[in-house]
Amino acid sequence: MKLYDVEASGNCYKVRLLASLANIELQLEPVDLANNEHRKPPMADMNPLAQVPVLVDGSSVLRDSQAILVYLAGTYGGLAWWPSHAQGQAEITQWLSFTANEIQHSLCAARLVQKFAAPLDKAAALAKSPAVLLLLDEHLRNNDWLAMARPTIAECAVYPYVALAPEGDVDISPYQHVAGWMKRLETLPGSLPKP
Amino acid sequence: MKLYDVEASGNCYKVRLLASLANIELQLEPVDLANNEHRKPPMADMNPLAQVPVLVDGSSVLRDSQAILVYLAGTYGGLAWWPSHAQGQAEITQWLSFTANEIQHSLCAARLVQKFAAPLDKAAALAKSPAVLLLLDEHLRNNDWLAMARPTIAECAVYPYVALAPEGDVDISPYQHVAGWMKRLETLPGSLPKP
Repeated sequence: MKLYDVEASGNCYKVRLLASLANIELQLEPVDLANNEHRKPPMADMNPLAQVPVLVDGSSVLRDSQAILVYLAGTYGGLAWWPSHAQGQAEITQWLSFTANEIQHSLCAARLVQKFAAPLDKAAALAKSPAVLLLLDEHLRNNDWLAMARPTIAECAVYPYVALAPEGDVDISPYQHVAGWMKRLETLPGSLPKP
Repeated sequence: MKLYDVEASGNCYKVRLLASLANIELQLEPVDLANNEHRKPPMADMNPLAQVPVLVDGSSVLRDSQAILVYLAGTYGGLAWWPSHAQGQAEITQWLSFTANEIQHSLCAARLVQKFAAPLDKAAALAKSPAVLLLLDEHLRNNDWLAMARPTIAECAVYPYVALAPEGDVDISPYQHVAGWMKRLETLPGSLPKP
């Protein structure tokens, strides 16, 4: 099973984090973004969004880090990280959407500008970041984990760009419940340090 | 089972569309956005993002239209709209992320500005829209449906803001495979006209 991967990508880190936590073996295939490998075949055929990560498992080809988390956890992770019942799946999906939209356009976008000179509006991204972190902090005030009272793929989806946020000049230090949650995740067996 | 709903909201329409297609009974509870009902308790407690829709089913409270689709289809829709196996769930999740991110910040954002005077960048939203529609069109050139070769909640998640895109001055007429897919969806039993 092959993961087309970029070490510094938070979206790729989401998948590597789950694989490490759930003991799923992945063959990493580095993608050369600087030479636009993601915009050329075969990468561009596998993902017309021209993004990493892409997972290839036999005849199955998947783009989108959230979709890959669902696939890996549901296929190889037992029921620990992605449950079989719709109530739990929906609880988790709330956070998959939150990372695809709110986190992507705040914490992640600020880092993309700062670290990779992406042509995005860093001021707008920074302006959205406190509300995102505050919502997380309020949720984690009363919950040890994002969904289902236990670590799930919601953690793998949300943690990476929170942990990497300081690289985009976002100050996460005021959010003590977020800090506690990060510490809990970082001390789970198999947790993987951020890139 | 109660859906906190705004008639003109494409995100609420996603849920109403699934309910209609899958014959799931919902009690609609209109939310008065003009009077900021979504920013005050009890709505703000149910969804700290201060958005509709919100679904309440017994003790279960869910925000986020994608999460609500997963819950309703998985709990009340049999296996027709949301399968039990991770491969199908992941195929669909690719499109749930696509609507939460790419469609939200293009087709949806342009309409929010045009129709509701939302403080967003309409020019930026319009600039992103052709790539979103082209990706859909290319996918639908070789596929009748978005995932699993049959209608699923991917359709409920993606169709609404495509169908409503002309309200944001986005021209969808060049995309003939998208048009064919829309027609197929609109002629399914129980399909619900756009608001």
